[in-house]
Amino acid sequence: MDLSTDTIHEVVARALREDVGAVDLTTLAAVPAEARAEAHVVFREAGVVCGLPVARAVFAAVDPALSWKATVGEGTRVEQGTIVATVAGPARGLLTGERVALNLLQRMSGIATMAARYVEAVAGTGARILDTRKTTPGLRALEKYAVRTGGAVNHRYGLYDGVMLKDNHLAILAAHGLGLAEAIGRARAAVGPMVRVEVEVESVEQAAAAAAAGADMILLDNMPPAQLRAAVAAVAGRARTEASGGITLETIRAVAESGVDYISVGALTHSARALDIGLDIAIGV
Amino acid sequence: MDLSTDTIHEVVARALREDVGAVDLTTLAAVPAEARAEAHVVFREAGVVCGLPVARAVFAAVDPALSWKATVGEGTRVEQGTIVATVAGPARGLLTGERVALNLLQRMSGIATMAARYVEAVAGTGARILDTRKTTPGLRALEKYAVRTGGAVNHRYGLYDGVMLKDNHLAILAAHGLGLAEAIGRARAAVGPMVRVEVEVESVEQAAAAAAAGADMILLDNMPPAQLRAAVAAVAGRARTEASGGITLETIRAVAESGVDYISVGALTHSARALDIGLDIAIGV
Amino acid sequence: MDLSTDTIHEVVARALREDVGAVDLTTLAAVPAEARAEAHVVFREAGVVCGLPVARAVFAAVDPALSWKATVGEGTRVEQGTIVATVAGPARGLLTGERVALNLLQRMSGIATMAARYVEAVAGTGARILDTRKTTPGLRALEKYAVRTGGAVNHRYGLYDGVMLKDNHLAILAAHGLGLAEAIGRARAAVGPMVRVEVEVESVEQAAAAAAAGADMILLDNMPPAQLRAAVAAVAGRARTEASGGITLETIRAVAESGVDYISVGALTHSARALDIGLDIAIGV
Amino acid sequence: MDLSTDTIHEVVARALREDVGAVDLTTLAAVPAEARAEAHVVFREAGVVCGLPVARAVFAAVDPALSWKATVGEGTRVEQGTIVATVAGPARGLLTGERVALNLLQRMSGIATMAARYVEAVAGTGARILDTRKTTPGLRALEKYAVRTGGAVNHRYGLYDGVMLKDNHLAILAAHGLGLAEAIGRARAAVGPMVRVEVEVESVEQAAAAAAAGADMILLDNMPPAQLRAAVAAVAGRARTEASGGITLETIRAVAESGVDYISVGALTHSARALDIGLDIAIGV
Amino acid sequence: MDLSTDTIHEVVARALREDVGAVDLTTLAAVPAEARAEAHVVFREAGVVCGLPVARAVFAAVDPALSWKATVGEGTRVEQGTIVATVAGPARGLLTGERVALNLLQRMSGIATMAARYVEAVAGTGARILDTRKTTPGLRALEKYAVRTGGAVNHRYGLYDGVMLKDNHLAILAAHGLGLAEAIGRARAAVGPMVRVEVEVESVEQAAAAAAAGADMILLDNMPPAQLRAAVAAVAGRARTEASGGITLETIRAVAESGVDYISVGALTHSARALDIGLDIAIGV
Amino acid sequence: MDLSTDTIHEVVARALREDVGAVDLTTLAAVPAEARAEAHVVFREAGVVCGLPVARAVFAAVDPALSWKATVGEGTRVEQGTIVATVAGPARGLLTGERVALNLLQRMSGIATMAARYVEAVAGTGARILDTRKTTPGLRALEKYAVRTGGAVNHRYGLYDGVMLKDNHLAILAAHGLGLAEAIGRARAAVGPMVRVEVEVESVEQAAAAAAAGADMILLDNMPPAQLRAAVAAVAGRARTEASGGITLETIRAVAESGVDYISVGALTHSARALDIGLDIAIGV
Repeated sequence: MDLSTDTIHEVVARALREDVGAVDLTTLAAVPAEARAEAHVVFREAGVVCGLPVARAVFAAVDPALSWKATVGEGTRVEQGTIVATVAGPARGLLTGERVALNLLQRMSGIATMAARYVEAVAGTGARILDTRKTTPGLRALEKYAVRTGGAVNHRYGLYDGVMLKDNHLAILAAHGLGLAEAIGRARAAVGPMVRVEVEVESVEQAAAAAAAGADMILLDNMPPAQLRAAVAAVAGRARTEASGGITLETIRAVAESGVDYISVGALTHSARALDIGLDIAIGV
Repeated sequence: MDLSTDTIHEVVARALREDVGAVDLTTLAAVPAEARAEAHVVFREAGVVCGLPVARAVFAAVDPALSWKATVGEGTRVEQGTIVATVAGPARGLLTGERVALNLLQRMSGIATMAARYVEAVAGTGARILDTRKTTPGLRALEKYAVRTGGAVNHRYGLYDGVMLKDNHLAILAAHGLGLAEAIGRARAAVGPMVRVEVEVESVEQAAAAAAAGADMILLDNMPPAQLRAAVAAVAGRARTEASGGITLETIRAVAESGVDYISVGALTHSARALDIGLDIAIGV
Repeated sequence: MDLSTDTIHEVVARALREDVGAVDLTTLAAVPAEARAEAHVVFREAGVVCGLPVARAVFAAVDPALSWKATVGEGTRVEQGTIVATVAGPARGLLTGERVALNLLQRMSGIATMAARYVEAVAGTGARILDTRKTTPGLRALEKYAVRTGGAVNHRYGLYDGVMLKDNHLAILAAHGLGLAEAIGRARAAVGPMVRVEVEVESVEQAAAAAAAGADMILLDNMPPAQLRAAVAAVAGRARTEASGGITLETIRAVAESGVDYISVGALTHSARALDIGLDIAIGV
Repeated sequence: MDLSTDTIHEVVARALREDVGAVDLTTLAAVPAEARAEAHVVFREAGVVCGLPVARAVFAAVDPALSWKATVGEGTRVEQGTIVATVAGPARGLLTGERVALNLLQRMSGIATMAARYVEAVAGTGARILDTRKTTPGLRALEKYAVRTGGAVNHRYGLYDGVMLKDNHLAILAAHGLGLAEAIGRARAAVGPMVRVEVEVESVEQAAAAAAAGADMILLDNMPPAQLRAAVAAVAGRARTEASGGITLETIRAVAESGVDYISVGALTHSARALDIGLDIAIGV
Repeated sequence: MDLSTDTIHEVVARALREDVGAVDLTTLAAVPAEARAEAHVVFREAGVVCGLPVARAVFAAVDPALSWKATVGEGTRVEQGTIVATVAGPARGLLTGERVALNLLQRMSGIATMAARYVEAVAGTGARILDTRKTTPGLRALEKYAVRTGGAVNHRYGLYDGVMLKDNHLAILAAHGLGLAEAIGRARAAVGPMVRVEVEVESVEQAAAAAAAGADMILLDNMPPAQLRAAVAAVAGRARTEASGGITLETIRAVAESGVDYISVGALTHSARALDIGLDIAIGV
Repeated sequence: MDLSTDTIHEVVARALREDVGAVDLTTLAAVPAEARAEAHVVFREAGVVCGLPVARAVFAAVDPALSWKATVGEGTRVEQGTIVATVAGPARGLLTGERVALNLLQRMSGIATMAARYVEAVAGTGARILDTRKTTPGLRALEKYAVRTGGAVNHRYGLYDGVMLKDNHLAILAAHGLGLAEAIGRARAAVGPMVRVEVEVESVEQAAAAAAAGADMILLDNMPPAQLRAAVAAVAGRARTEASGGITLETIRAVAESGVDYISVGALTHSARALDIGLDIAIGV
């Protein structure tokens, strides 16, 4: 799925306002107005390319006279040293947009690359990788797009498009004498027909109870593989299952082999390392 | 230095709009309107606390009836398991604000903690740690504040508050027959008296030339410690020196001992891992 | 479910800016700055009260010194002549805010009243009333809230929180050789696990096919009651069913008795008449 | 009179953000990126066409690659079944923009159609139809434009472009010992030379007094035709006259024949029914 | 007439964002967080005080803990050296807000003072002083308020609240074969009943023709006093008259004595000198 | 240095919204939609041309069909009567944009012209003219650009890009037992390596002390030329020097000859008179 032009525009405008502010002192002070340049966007390490349309929008916003030509497709896995795009035109605008374009590209490609690694790690099992709401404030749409670009699946976008009864909700409901089944019933009754209800459980018994109470999806929190397997069996296809909690590239295969439908990984968005991507001037005139 | 109320307000409003959207389906569907709760913000790993005023602002924006009490000071280094704040009041608002508050706190504390590690690594040398412009678009003010909270120093805020002639600027100027000294001269002549001029160099000879041409600060890019030491000697106090380029916790001590004034570390903001911080319901009524 | 403070604030600020503009010429020219007044918000016809928190926000935005006291609860069904709230304080602000407060209250109460009539008309059947996306641009959150206040249920909030394959989607997919089942399959594969998929059908056969293909909800478009009954039977509980298309207060009972789960009524939001609500000065000093 | 591009842009951007949000799940999940379509905008009932430039702007905002061709002029009265425009291009954008475009077109054409009916009802009398400030918050400029498109006349745009002393203003002024004539005098003295002053009266005597005191326009509130006739005679051309208050298509002719200059009808904007307008896919490839 | 809170808020927020940006380096670097101060706002030259509520809003926006006490009323004429307000509280906020508060106060008081001088210069004649649309972009509401504070009268607020057929409009209409009377007729027919129509004329004959054609107000452009007198006689009370065009404090008395109703002075807003106003620290602790 | 497109766009959009509001009544009521015109932008007095790109942006924003052709370069000094640009196209848009375009052009050219006079007055001395932060709120970027266009130099852009310890800062620090040298030291230690520190002094002794304490720049406030000369001597090249305080065109030469590096003149932006610039219709069809 795509990114809306409106989202790209808003993020790019905000980022440029933040970085350029009143004026780009360096470029305007030192670079002749008539200077022109061509530059390559280069992956200095291997990874999954993500964010090319966003980077293009940065340069277009700085100076519409800058041209942009992507040389690989969005989502491609590239080797170290690959040129992924060429930008050319007035040198001032090219230099002014460089950092913002790279900042977005590095972050998005970092997330897509990390997502692709997790997807690969569970290949052949039935499990699919999900993201979470642990995204960078202000960049959720871009980060969820990067997750998709890496081959993983998006969980809820926010609090508005799905019900998720987590430990803290259940703790408060319990203090009001409302158990798991009642919590699921209350939620189901209040929301519209297109809304799914997920509930977090901490034991096999709770998983079974949640499935019986009509949960659409069950979050199995912090369970070792054996317990996950038991929970999946107890749910018995009545609801989708999701494993969650501190899962790493080392542990994920075992989790996936437990038979869960989904595995959510917060680190995809809260701790992805930026990829090393640079801009090299190819021609300056 | 502080964070302006305006900045906090803008980031928090944007983050809540992004996460809550039209309505928090879960809380409103399942949690009684009259439910109240008290919860602890807990560091699930050790680190430097950063972002408490921002987290407070999140809960206040969701529901002004929520109270907030920080139990450690901003910037404190805490152990795993430390409660850093308590939030109490209407349960719905508390649950609605949880994720956004934690997302900001985790990221800011992650940066502050990483900065503190780098600062510690160079303790006793004269070198100071700098951040860069490789920040998350839309969050620069918060991330630069987190860097300061961790004890490091802020480099430029953006393109508007300092001249920095980097490799790409110099390449374009060279294509126009303008060398290093001319670049520095052009910049100096065009900007106002309060603006400093920094220039990136790649050899000891260039460093010496830059100092002679009147640069205020010289970026020594990707030099091994011995070369840095030679460059510092060649500059001979005529300008500040900054080492930069792929410096890690493992290599930074040697860099610092070369005698440079500053060491800039992009990873502080582009690749800091979020700290593991949670919200535990203490009382629900 | 509630309305977020942020939504109310945004709508009210925009409405006041639109109506007041640079200055309220009348009030400021003619009304003494020290004049004070108390006024009653009066329902000049019977209906369901909706929008009191929004009206209160209007007066608070114009002048925080204005007090507001609701005398009936939001969602109450009141008779003609009922005073639903009292606003008191500086006369200028009271007069400046009057029209915007009433405009919002009249529209929201009009929708809630209309929704309540439809809900009442199907009482005792299992059918529930749904709204649509045919809302007033810029006021969707308020109008969906008014629908709930009238006792009906919200369908999707927008294009972002549910998949709905309507006639136009299917026509385009057909031109690509993709039938109903393939459309449902494509959608299901692309979206996350919390997203439901609804499909529009025009015959009993299509309804059966959609259910077999795994649709979560099936829109039965413009079917007479007998056909609806057959479609419901064909779906056989495998998916929720929704009747739609030109249903009025006169025809809805028969539709509901066909056994459909939901009936959607676009007129709730696109053609509700504003209720007649006025502001009467009770005391002026 | 026209609609400013800025107004159209602002309303359209807000409406799309509200409806599309982060992503149009359906279109992007199910419709191939390369699919193209041509569709007709069809009036499913007779009426006055209004809003074509706004609908065009919606599709242009979603995807600039969509073409738009209006086949009747704005303001034309068309029969049921008339195709008023054709939109063609990438199918995804066409489907994403459909609802927002129709929502605006239906509402604006509904208002223009209703206004045209009122204008027709008073044809041949000297009376002209006016709108009021009872518009949809956020859409006033569009609704006032629709009123003009239907052949009626705009009253004030807001509180900023005319003085209107209504019952509530006069009640408060009376409590300060200021009568009708004094109210008019105060207002006249305070405002600039380009501002007209209207006052609301409830009797023939008040109408005469208002004219004598220099009112530019007199609102005759809730008077039967005979009383209106007497009031018009008492004003004797010294001011414009406006009849107002619960006037319907059934009663308006008699009101107009009383000789008033203007008749204001709040229902034009607060209770116009949306016209039934659809989008039919003509070609999908 | 007052200034709306919304206007003040918007101007102040924009001004602070522009001046403070990411951070007030000086105050935060040098001034202890716990420092407190009390300062006087002092008129360093005589003038009319205007903008106190705006200055107060600046300090409140920077830090709500700052208190503000005006010691003279808005609109008062004060002598050199007068303290007009005292601000006290946290020193950092006081220093951060100083420049923005003074910038607004100096400009607004400069305009009010200049307006008062013009008003005084025509005292005893029937003429009143008008402003124009030659205001500072973004500050029109504040500047029109300052004009009123100085005792002059506001002309139109913008293009939206009055018709003004100026030389350029008439030139274009003439090219279409439309003369003065036809221009007035077209305008009158197209606008609503609350809109006044003014027309610019350059001769006594045109003034007479405009009055005969039903203009509500006639702009007598660049006429010497004798010609103005003739024009006023020719208009003979059928319309208001306005003199305009390069009128200075030296020439205005003679213009006023020609009998015109209004004299407009663009310099009030486009060329008023800022008043010299300072902030003196009285106590620092 | 240039103006960013974003800045121009934001100022122009705000200015048009303020002036045009809902609708340009005059143009739309009186001017035929098909009318076209060509008009000249004429300097009615001599001066430095500044703001052409901004004026062009105004017309483009009103109607993209308007063409613009500048006939002199930005920054040119022109004689009275010079045509500086021609705008042509739909007459309505041309008339709607006229006032906003001229308001911006008049103000910017007024500032550039005043700056050029000051620059000329110090020609041949080493002194350069600086602006201040006494700019029009909301227009700082445009005004600083106008100052540059007139040949002067920009001081700080705001509180964020330089440290300036002024009298009020020093008074508060003194109350905390912190003298001039300590103030400079505190500031230096807290800010990053690219930030310069300026301090205001009132005597030759303070100037010497500030230089000794490491100030980068010293503001010599309100000193007569002889004292300035002594201060410059005392500073002895260790810091830049800036004279400030009530300096006029009459006194500035003597100030410049004192040997100071910079002279700051607040009047450049707070009290520049708008230049007389008009728009003359050349052809109307």
